Amino acid sequence: MADAKKLMYISPIGYSFLDDQIKYYILKYVENCTICATSLTKAPYHLEYLYYSALIAPELLNKIRQAEIDGFDAAIIGCFYDPFLYEAREMSNKLVVTAPCEASLSIAVKLGATFSIIVGRRKMIPYMRENVRKYGFESKLASFRSVELGVLDFQDKKDLAEERILREAERAVKEDGAEVVVLGCTKEFGFFQKVQDNLGVPVIDSMIAACKEAEYLVSCKNMLNWTTSKVGAYETPKDSEIRQWKLDKYFHIPMQ
Amino acid sequence: MADAKKLMYISPIGYSFLDDQIKYYILKYVENCTICATSLTKAPYHLEYLYYSALIAPELLNKIRQAEIDGFDAAIIGCFYDPFLYEAREMSNKLVVTAPCEASLSIAVKLGATFSIIVGRRKMIPYMRENVRKYGFESKLASFRSVELGVLDFQDKKDLAEERILREAERAVKEDGAEVVVLGCTKEFGFFQKVQDNLGVPVIDSMIAACKEAEYLVSCKNMLNWTTSKVGAYETPKDSEIRQWKLDKYFHIPMQ
Amino acid sequence: MADAKKLMYISPIGYSFLDDQIKYYILKYVENCTICATSLTKAPYHLEYLYYSALIAPELLNKIRQAEIDGFDAAIIGCFYDPFLYEAREMSNKLVVTAPCEASLSIAVKLGATFSIIVGRRKMIPYMRENVRKYGFESKLASFRSVELGVLDFQDKKDLAEERILREAERAVKEDGAEVVVLGCTKEFGFFQKVQDNLGVPVIDSMIAACKEAEYLVSCKNMLNWTTSKVGAYETPKDSEIRQWKLDKYFHIPMQ
Amino acid sequence: MADAKKLMYISPIGYSFLDDQIKYYILKYVENCTICATSLTKAPYHLEYLYYSALIAPELLNKIRQAEIDGFDAAIIGCFYDPFLYEAREMSNKLVVTAPCEASLSIAVKLGATFSIIVGRRKMIPYMRENVRKYGFESKLASFRSVELGVLDFQDKKDLAEERILREAERAVKEDGAEVVVLGCTKEFGFFQKVQDNLGVPVIDSMIAACKEAEYLVSCKNMLNWTTSKVGAYETPKDSEIRQWKLDKYFHIPMQ
Amino acid sequence: MADAKKLMYISPIGYSFLDDQIKYYILKYVENCTICATSLTKAPYHLEYLYYSALIAPELLNKIRQAEIDGFDAAIIGCFYDPFLYEAREMSNKLVVTAPCEASLSIAVKLGATFSIIVGRRKMIPYMRENVRKYGFESKLASFRSVELGVLDFQDKKDLAEERILREAERAVKEDGAEVVVLGCTKEFGFFQKVQDNLGVPVIDSMIAACKEAEYLVSCKNMLNWTTSKVGAYETPKDSEIRQWKLDKYFHIPMQ
Amino acid sequence: MADAKKLMYISPIGYSFLDDQIKYYILKYVENCTICATSLTKAPYHLEYLYYSALIAPELLNKIRQAEIDGFDAAIIGCFYDPFLYEAREMSNKLVVTAPCEASLSIAVKLGATFSIIVGRRKMIPYMRENVRKYGFESKLASFRSVELGVLDFQDKKDLAEERILREAERAVKEDGAEVVVLGCTKEFGFFQKVQDNLGVPVIDSMIAACKEAEYLVSCKNMLNWTTSKVGAYETPKDSEIRQWKLDKYFHIPMQ
Repeated sequence: MADAKKLMYISPIGYSFLDDQIKYYILKYVENCTICATSLTKAPYHLEYLYYSALIAPELLNKIRQAEIDGFDAAIIGCFYDPFLYEAREMSNKLVVTAPCEASLSIAVKLGATFSIIVGRRKMIPYMRENVRKYGFESKLASFRSVELGVLDFQDKKDLAEERILREAERAVKEDGAEVVVLGCTKEFGFFQKVQDNLGVPVIDSMIAACKEAEYLVSCKNMLNWTTSKVGAYETPKDSEIRQWKLDKYFHIPMQ
Repeated sequence: MADAKKLMYISPIGYSFLDDQIKYYILKYVENCTICATSLTKAPYHLEYLYYSALIAPELLNKIRQAEIDGFDAAIIGCFYDPFLYEAREMSNKLVVTAPCEASLSIAVKLGATFSIIVGRRKMIPYMRENVRKYGFESKLASFRSVELGVLDFQDKKDLAEERILREAERAVKEDGAEVVVLGCTKEFGFFQKVQDNLGVPVIDSMIAACKEAEYLVSCKNMLNWTTSKVGAYETPKDSEIRQWKLDKYFHIPMQ
Repeated sequence: MADAKKLMYISPIGYSFLDDQIKYYILKYVENCTICATSLTKAPYHLEYLYYSALIAPELLNKIRQAEIDGFDAAIIGCFYDPFLYEAREMSNKLVVTAPCEASLSIAVKLGATFSIIVGRRKMIPYMRENVRKYGFESKLASFRSVELGVLDFQDKKDLAEERILREAERAVKEDGAEVVVLGCTKEFGFFQKVQDNLGVPVIDSMIAACKEAEYLVSCKNMLNWTTSKVGAYETPKDSEIRQWKLDKYFHIPMQ
Repeated sequence: MADAKKLMYISPIGYSFLDDQIKYYILKYVENCTICATSLTKAPYHLEYLYYSALIAPELLNKIRQAEIDGFDAAIIGCFYDPFLYEAREMSNKLVVTAPCEASLSIAVKLGATFSIIVGRRKMIPYMRENVRKYGFESKLASFRSVELGVLDFQDKKDLAEERILREAERAVKEDGAEVVVLGCTKEFGFFQKVQDNLGVPVIDSMIAACKEAEYLVSCKNMLNWTTSKVGAYETPKDSEIRQWKLDKYFHIPMQ
Repeated sequence: MADAKKLMYISPIGYSFLDDQIKYYILKYVENCTICATSLTKAPYHLEYLYYSALIAPELLNKIRQAEIDGFDAAIIGCFYDPFLYEAREMSNKLVVTAPCEASLSIAVKLGATFSIIVGRRKMIPYMRENVRKYGFESKLASFRSVELGVLDFQDKKDLAEERILREAERAVKEDGAEVVVLGCTKEFGFFQKVQDNLGVPVIDSMIAACKEAEYLVSCKNMLNWTTSKVGAYETPKDSEIRQWKLDKYFHIPMQ
Repeated sequence: MADAKKLMYISPIGYSFLDDQIKYYILKYVENCTICATSLTKAPYHLEYLYYSALIAPELLNKIRQAEIDGFDAAIIGCFYDPFLYEAREMSNKLVVTAPCEASLSIAVKLGATFSIIVGRRKMIPYMRENVRKYGFESKLASFRSVELGVLDFQDKKDLAEERILREAERAVKEDGAEVVVLGCTKEFGFFQKVQDNLGVPVIDSMIAACKEAEYLVSCKNMLNWTTSKVGAYETPKDSEIRQWKLDKYFHIPMQ
């Protein structure tokens, strides 16, 4: 039997007290994987703002580099904005890198003809819609629905969150024609099962979707050597150049 | 450890002498799966014509229904036109159904920013281009390249086929800007490794891509209960209706 | 004066008792044509499911082949899903083949800047939307509106059907901005005149639209020799190949 | 038998010596129609420039209004830019109005999966491409090919024109994957048959395509009362308003 | 300091009594410009109909030609349909030509992720939507909202107009997700400030937007020599040809 | 006369010796503006890699915040990838923020019907193509052309760079149908004039285009109060939250 796949799940936020809970949550849904769930040291508590996600770029990417050095098979970027997904694929070598939005939509379109995304706040919709379009799935998007809750509320006010997610997911299915519901924030974890049971449609937990995709892509890497193409967009910068310009020093970049 | 996943690979063509070879080929690239490779009894030898693919619809779908009855986890439709993929998802219940084009493109866009598809003959391009567009990946398509060989030539004239695939794949990368190469016919199996080694870019064997995706979706089904949504496009016809109109008799449909 | 054009209208369903009614209905709206209205022998009573439409592929295509052998000028596929339209164009030689959705939208966009489609059930929308997109008219689509009636209800419960079609068509015009209404099921025949009179906008009967387009394309064929291009997507399989693989025997294919 | 359909073909240019030739040319390809071919009195000799087409707007639209008053069934705007097609549909009442580009593409996509357009000069391509996109057929466009001849050269230097059209049409089919060729200038009349015979693909004469479509739409008008929708984009201005502002005087508008 | 930029604002309508008011209105919002506000002599009072806009083509384009001859730096076409914008760019030489819709959307997408357009009547939406698509901004369009007022009502019934604009703009922001509001008629001038203050989002006065863009493009012309490209779509007709065909006489075209 | 507009041009790279040269270069092309040209302290020498652009996010955004605090009217992000443009607009208050790609394409589409972009290396194309699509101008893109030079080569090997830019720009115009040429790297400054003179088409210097757009948007801000909408995508994070999570400390964020 194959070796366990080593997955690194990174919450790109500045607190760690959910890391263990996340780890055991993920472990329930993967096969033959080990999970390391981690977070950042100097970071905001949520990434509702693009500005916040820009701030954490160096530390997030350092974590991902370190994961490759440490022998992880995959890194998962734990935010539905998919921050720095392409940057991470460009920077890394054989490491699989996945992210929640790309992974969730990729599976959603195989389970139904249309999907809706349940987001925290209206503010998030335009950028996410751009991502939906970038990934190619715009014509399958039934709607965005907002529960008008902050990211932190999902775990802090679970009952309220569940009630609103249920309500908006039901509207998405009944009024907007959604056949699959995507929970459009990794902090909406823990809710999918109940919504799925209530509505009778697949409900995608984006944290888990990203981990399942990582598991699958690692299998492709291990057995078929299908890894990020390096001839174009994802060509990797040379270590020598990084050292020459002291970027390793300035940004504390882990170097092999 | 989880039970082995039971995959049924169906070549929608009228000869069976490659079935065993296909089975062992697939087995090299999956983890913890059993493979049944089968083909049809009354069918053309290739599906270069849409008309041919229409003819085999009933037998193909019967095979898929039988697979679900027999306890398979997934059925894979072995033709890059993805014939009757949506029909099969609609008709089945919890069965995973995958197909080569959808599966290949889904992984290709995660490995590179652009891809090219190497097809047998120019004739196939328009319909496949429509599929690329339907799946949402048109803006990532670098080119189609044709080797001008019939489907049967891929295994009958392997040296010629390999030479031409190599040539066109190289042109796709060098001239068209492709970062990933997709072998756009399931009968192009057995070539990906060499082309991949020669060109240094991921080369997708579409037969294997469909099986890997099946493996992954079965895992999602087993662990998350994510299965085809039945509230809209993929609502399943009622058995009672099928019996009432004697469709089961007319078309020898396997009924549970 | 030119010879009468011979049109074959095929209801791809398993009952024939409406065939005569359909024939005389069509005859009211064409010029200098003869109509043969026929249906299938082994088929479901409606094609609400893609699966059903797949089952009838061989018999439908046999009917179309026979029509060409028998000297018909055109075959009309009588279902708004346009099942096997491209297959029929590929398989036939000089025969004109038309279908209701393609024909209806083609004329709708010349009569108004936007259109809405009135369908039977929500289930049908995603696949039809895909067709709208495939034909190129997505940006002119105002809305789909569902009357939530089964296909058979349109003729079985005419009063109810008319009431609902009127209601949804009116909403399409008033609320969705539709300038033309398309009745998105061939079984919605017999209603267009009243809806048109009531709403004051063109209302397209898709059965008739397909016949009118056939009449027009036959005229182009006869006078200009404009027939299906055979250099690419619609290249026809060789009879010799069909015979070699015994497809004619297996599928009772009419051969010339 | 139905009355002959009365078609008015308007060359929106300032010379009339081809009118008769055009009339008899069209008559060869229509059924049961009468043709009036006319042109303008104060106009440029070609419409290669958008500016030129703007100048002739009032006279062209007057001609179309007069056609409706005189009992014509249809007016055909004889320029592949389709100048003022929507304006004419808005302004007229029950009159059918067609134009070469819209008509040619509408039939081209039914005869093949892709088409190329052979234009006079590169200058014309961007605006025509915009029209292709506006009509919804961009994804079926194989290429534009320019013969680098002025509009007037098509009839003045027939041999040269034919040679170049043949050459570029062949390249479109062989190199660009075109399955249908559209002659993208009404002044390219008289060439389609030879190109069609030589290449073995349908070659659309856009002048004739517009007339055939007119014939077909008149039939729909007469038998089904399908005419331009007046509830939105094509709402007609009131005669009273036109008179109140003396537009009839200023622009010599024919009023009923 | 640079010379004042000379802008010519043309209301393509047949009354002049607002010209002065418009001139002083524009002057409040530009820097170092002189404004000439003019209108047409033989023209309708509004351009709600495409037909009306076609009628005024020659006089409008003459005014623009004259502006270039008279040494103006820019001409602004004062109607949100942007009538004859491309024609004017083609016909002129170094003159900057701008129009309200293009200019408004170009700035709107820099101020917010989405925008809505407030139009007079539903009738105008389809053509404007086509323009939005032509300019490339369709995916950023939140909605059209109609106040159901004629163009003339905006200045004749200011209170009613303001009330309705406020109401629909608010709905656009609250219900449709608009982040920027565009007043989609040049006659909606004078309202933007109040709506902007009330709603707290940028509200684009399209008349001013077109003037600001003209000011900006004139600066680019003066300092960088960035002017309309003459190698393709906007190639200018030769004066000699215009004279040869007496277009200058027929249409009273100002010639240099 | 209005106060001079204060523009801050930021080269997001780690050397400053071109800053002065850039400042005086820009000054030649703006009116009534002051320019501050600056660069970063800890940064790579070019941003050919997305990874590099991620690294400099915090310092770049700090510079932009500081610019707003210091009373600048606009900040210009000096890289054709437009890194963190939306983040900067979200984070800032009334500050205008522009970037070269968005600004260049916005003006290019007003000068011609099509444009080509001359880039340094093929590697950059996919991400830039995504930006072209995001901004809405994909249908006007004639081609990308690569000179296969590193970003630093543009100023280090000026002769070679000029020769290649000229060659590829000419091909873009002659072979690809480009009517406008965009120099797709801010380090391609200093070349536009010669290429423009040689080819006779507008050639956009993207550094200058971004500054001209800034000048224009500042004028709109000053005179019309048109500034970034704060109701949706660009809602600004609260200072209190930034302080609460010590982001100001961690990232040395300038706070007012």
